[in-house]
Order: sequence, then structure tokens, then C-alpha cells
Amino acid sequence: MPKVRVGLVGYGTIGKRVVEAVNKQPDMQVVGVVKTKPDFFAQILLSKGFELYAASRESFESMSKAGLEVKGVLEELLTKCDVVVDCTPEGTGAKNKPLYERARVKAIFQGGEKRDVAEASFVAEVNYQEALDKTFVRVVSCNTTGLSRTLGRLNAEFEIKKVRATIIRRGADPVETKRGPINALIPNPPHIPSHHGPDVQTVIHDLPIVTSAVIAPTTLMHLHVVNVEFAQKVTKDGVIDALSRSKRIRFVDSSNGFDSTASIIEFARDLGRARGDVPEVVVWRDSLTVMDNELYYMQAVHQESIVVPENVDAIRAVTGLEREAARSISLTNKTLGLE
Amino acid sequence: MPKVRVGLVGYGTIGKRVVEAVNKQPDMQVVGVVKTKPDFFAQILLSKGFELYAASRESFESMSKAGLEVKGVLEELLTKCDVVVDCTPEGTGAKNKPLYERARVKAIFQGGEKRDVAEASFVAEVNYQEALDKTFVRVVSCNTTGLSRTLGRLNAEFEIKKVRATIIRRGADPVETKRGPINALIPNPPHIPSHHGPDVQTVIHDLPIVTSAVIAPTTLMHLHVVNVEFAQKVTKDGVIDALSRSKRIRFVDSSNGFDSTASIIEFARDLGRARGDVPEVVVWRDSLTVMDNELYYMQAVHQESIVVPENVDAIRAVTGLEREAARSISLTNKTLGLE
Repeated sequence: MPKVRVGLVGYGTIGKRVVEAVNKQPDMQVVGVVKTKPDFFAQILLSKGFELYAASRESFESMSKAGLEVKGVLEELLTKCDVVVDCTPEGTGAKNKPLYERARVKAIFQGGEKRDVAEASFVAEVNYQEALDKTFVRVVSCNTTGLSRTLGRLNAEFEIKKVRATIIRRGADPVETKRGPINALIPNPPHIPSHHGPDVQTVIHDLPIVTSAVIAPTTLMHLHVVNVEFAQKVTKDGVIDALSRSKRIRFVDSSNGFDSTASIIEFARDLGRARGDVPEVVVWRDSLTVMDNELYYMQAVHQESIVVPENVDAIRAVTGLEREAARSISLTNKTLGLE
Repeated sequence: MPKVRVGLVGYGTIGKRVVEAVNKQPDMQVVGVVKTKPDFFAQILLSKGFELYAASRESFESMSKAGLEVKGVLEELLTKCDVVVDCTPEGTGAKNKPLYERARVKAIFQGGEKRDVAEASFVAEVNYQEALDKTFVRVVSCNTTGLSRTLGRLNAEFEIKKVRATIIRRGADPVETKRGPINALIPNPPHIPSHHGPDVQTVIHDLPIVTSAVIAPTTLMHLHVVNVEFAQKVTKDGVIDALSRSKRIRFVDSSNGFDSTASIIEFARDLGRARGDVPEVVVWRDSLTVMDNELYYMQAVHQESIVVPENVDAIRAVTGLEREAARSISLTNKTLGLE
């Protein structure tokens, strides 16, 4: 079976990780990566052996002038791809969509795009089947992915009456020096519910969920405090069993040194993981508490990498490379070291 | 009626504010302030016209040697007081208690002390009567005070079935350079429920409340995301009415520029409030949402000053200076500019 030919559009926080993840898949081939600016990230991209394409004619000129070897523009890349992963900034994906349609190339969008950019929103362990053979699929945002992973597992095994979650959002990614806050807490959005609840519902349809969100001055990870009210009695062991069935959910214990998001990232760095990434949603086992029909827990989400395995699986789903969710997920996990 | 003679023990974040608040009361007189170290805070204290006492003989020597005018030691101050406000670090209040007992002086402790240090825990608008004529009363911590104020008002007017609150704690006070985190979110405690729920119950007895807490890298204020499930239907207007009856609850609107804890503090600074203090608990009106029988809201707590008016009222309650809560609270509010 020939490898699926994948183009990457955008080489920011998500794009640069997805291209390396795709490159590790035995059934996929990276054809090229589209960038706009001739910055040092473009040099890194070339040094890693990827082919560079320009987002536009102007971009082609400026990158060529900077001495970079540019293979062509986006439209030319599209003629060589079966599918593209669009990792451009919020809203740009929707603007690019007509190009993909014209070129008859399938596309995976990110969670910054509105849900109607795609035929389905996607979290592999929850609704892989929904994305099968679709043309356009949207991998949901980092917070929505984290919530969907744990709530999806719980929803598969128990009857959920209501979810109430507070999302403490990181203010910026480590490299984003123009974003804040440095010293403040920001209700964001200032109204309740936040958009995250409805976004989870694009993946786990009809889940009764209310979310609120506050931005904090940190760059490492988001942190969720989740309350799940069940229509039945559950036990802590039952919950741990349910969550343990996913390799994309990792348990840590505060008593074992995982006392903050910083120690989770340090753990990943010490493990030798590229960039110190943690694509798993990380649940503090000590925080898991069952009281009557209610479960409480805290989890951390590495905003830079949690959606990376989802993008790989989304490629398999839309191209029909693999029709069984479990097999795609297992291959992705193995190649990305999530075991 | 002679003024009640008040001694202050401890001149840290809370102590230095309480002494100035007490000094503004027409029915109270500050006799002296106890400090341990001869630092620049001691000089400020003297420059404000307060009399300085030493926590111990050694402390007396070191402060005298530094050229400070020290009136005597703690035990000597106690002979001149009707009541002391103990604002010493966590645990020190309990150690001081035998001294107060021996001197037959009433004492107000802070929330860092365990509840059993006192006969009653205290939030003026909730349980002033409980503190009347007591010898030892504990003003609860900043987070507990903030929760008790809004939940106390709601509990007085509606039947509460359950409260679930997430507390995003400030990592340090602005002056505390040895505390962190600088860049991490810390489940603190890592288990659920946190101690705040039971602490609220020392004031609002039998309130069904579950709290969780996470520390964030900020120094300005705590932020609470509160969910209240009622045994009855409530309306947003009804909730606003209930909360509006307290001058110690202040509404702000995100749409009006109050988009973070930083803008709340900036508002207080621009108003000309001493130290930029905000002794009110601050509720974001735009966050108030009623869905079925459930209310959600976000509120901010200025950890440095929220308990200041409570300490003033606690003095009136234990000394019997004023037997009616509303009259003490009104006088305190007026003298502290909470209107």
C-alpha cells in the first residue's frame, strides 16, 4: 500500500510537532511544509530534511531572497498531496479551505477554527468513526481534547448526569513573549459558560457540561478542575479503571513528586522527550475523589502537544488508511512513545 | 463610654492594616503594637505615631540597640489592653494564647490558626452574634471570608442544596519574594476537598460545600469560581438583590474594564485607597449565570485586606462594645470607606 502523502500548512507550535509526528508514521509521507516568513524556524525545518513551500508568491520571494531553498507555493504543494494538516493561526484555516476544495485535497483543521469549517470535530478515542472518509475534519483545541479524553472514557462506562469544569488556562506558550498576563487572573471568558463545554459537545454529543475559564500567568500547561455528577454510584477504583484503558491519559501522584505542572514538564524533559512534550492528558490520582454520585479530579493539559496524536489519527480516518480506531490509535501511540 | 483599649500583636500584611483600621474607630484606641525585628517596618510604625512593644526580651534588646524607641515587651502591653488582635504568623497565635489567658485579655486570632484556638470563628455579616462576649474569636482566612460573605448572603435568602467552588490562590503576597511559583500551577492541596469548605462551615454551619484549590503565579488576588445548586428556582436578579445588600460585596463588570484582578487593584489605587486595598469581595456581575436551579459566579478576594473590617467588628463583638451586628458593620464600613 502506498504511503499517504501529507502536506503541512503552518509551522508554529502545533505544525512543527505534527510534521515530525507524521514523519514517524510507517504509512505516511511528508511531502512538504508551508511557511510564510523566512525566520530561523524555516532553517530548522530545512535542516530536518523537510521541503519548504511558501504560503504565497510574496512569501516565496522573501524566503528565496533570504537564501532559503523554496520548492514552490502552497498551490503547488497541494497537487502532490492526498491530505493537508492546516496548522495556521485561528481563522486562516477557513480562508485556506477553498484552495483545498479546488485542489480536491482532504484537510485536517485545528481547534482555533470554527466547528463549521469541517464535517466533524475529532478526538480519536471518542469519535474516530465519525471522521472516516470525510473530506474536512477539525481536531478540537487542547482544552477540549483534554476534557474529551477523560470525559469520553467516563461517558463510555458510566451514565453522566452533569459535568462542571473549571479551566485554568495558561496565559501564553513559552515562546510567546507578547502575551500576558504577567501578574493577574483573567476571567476568560468573563461569562459562564465558556465555549469549551459546547466544544466538547461537538465530540461527545449531548454530554451535559458547563465550563468556566480563567487565565493565569503561566506558560507550561492548562489545569482543569472537573466535577462529574453521575446518574449512578461509582467507585474511585471503577473510575481509575475506566481512565486507565487509555494510553493518552497518564496518572501522576502529587505524593510522588508531581506537585505541579512544572514537575510534569520536568519529568518529560528528564525522560528525553522531544521538546519536553506531554501529549497525554495528565490526571492527578491523589485528586480523584468520589463523594456520593459525584467525582472530582484535577488534570493538566500540555497545550503545545496534546493534539499531536489526534492529528495523526485524523489523517488515517479521513483517508481511510485505517478503518478501526483502536488500530490507528495504537500505531500512533507506539510511534510517538505513548506507552 | 471609655474607648476599648486594643493591642496589636504582629505587624505583617494583616497587622499593619488592622492597626490603622482600629485607629480610625471612634470607640477604640490603639495602645501599642508588638513586633519582633528592628526592620524598616518598625520605623514606619513609629512614624505613624504608634507605640512599639517587643515580642520578647531578646527582641526588646535588638530593637533598642537599633535605636528604636521600645515601650516594653508583650506582657507589659497586655496589662494595658482590653483586647488584643493577634496577627502573628500561622501557629504563633496558639503559642501566645496562654499569655492572653494569664493576663485576662480577650484575643482575636487570624485564620492561619486552627479553629479550636477560639470559641468561635467569625465573619461579621454571617455570625456576629456567635462572637458576642466571647474571650477568644478567630477571624477566618481570606478565602474563607470571601466565600462566607457571598454564600452567607445567598444562604440567608435561599435554600442551598450544594456548593462547589474552585479556588485559584495567589502564590504569594506582593512583598513575599521567597515564595513561588513563578511559572506553574500547583494543586494545593492536591486532594479534594480542600480545607476551605470545612472552614466555611465553621462560620456557616451545615452548609453543604466542596472546595478544590490550585495555586497560580500571581500576587494580587485570589479568584473563586463558585457553583451553587439551590433547592429552589432562583433568578439572576434575585441573586444580585441578595448580594447587593452587603457593602462588603462589590460588583464589577468585565465589559466596564474590570477584565482581570489587575484592573480591580488598579481601580483601588486610582481611588486613592491606602495601599490599593480592596476589603470587599469583588463579584464579576457578567459572570453571574443562573441555569435551572444552579448559579455560577466568579469573585476576587484581596488577600491582604479582606479580613481587616472583620477584625474591627470582632473587637466590638467580644468586648460587647456593640451588640447589634448591623450597627458595628455599618460603623466599620463608614470609617473604612466601604460605601
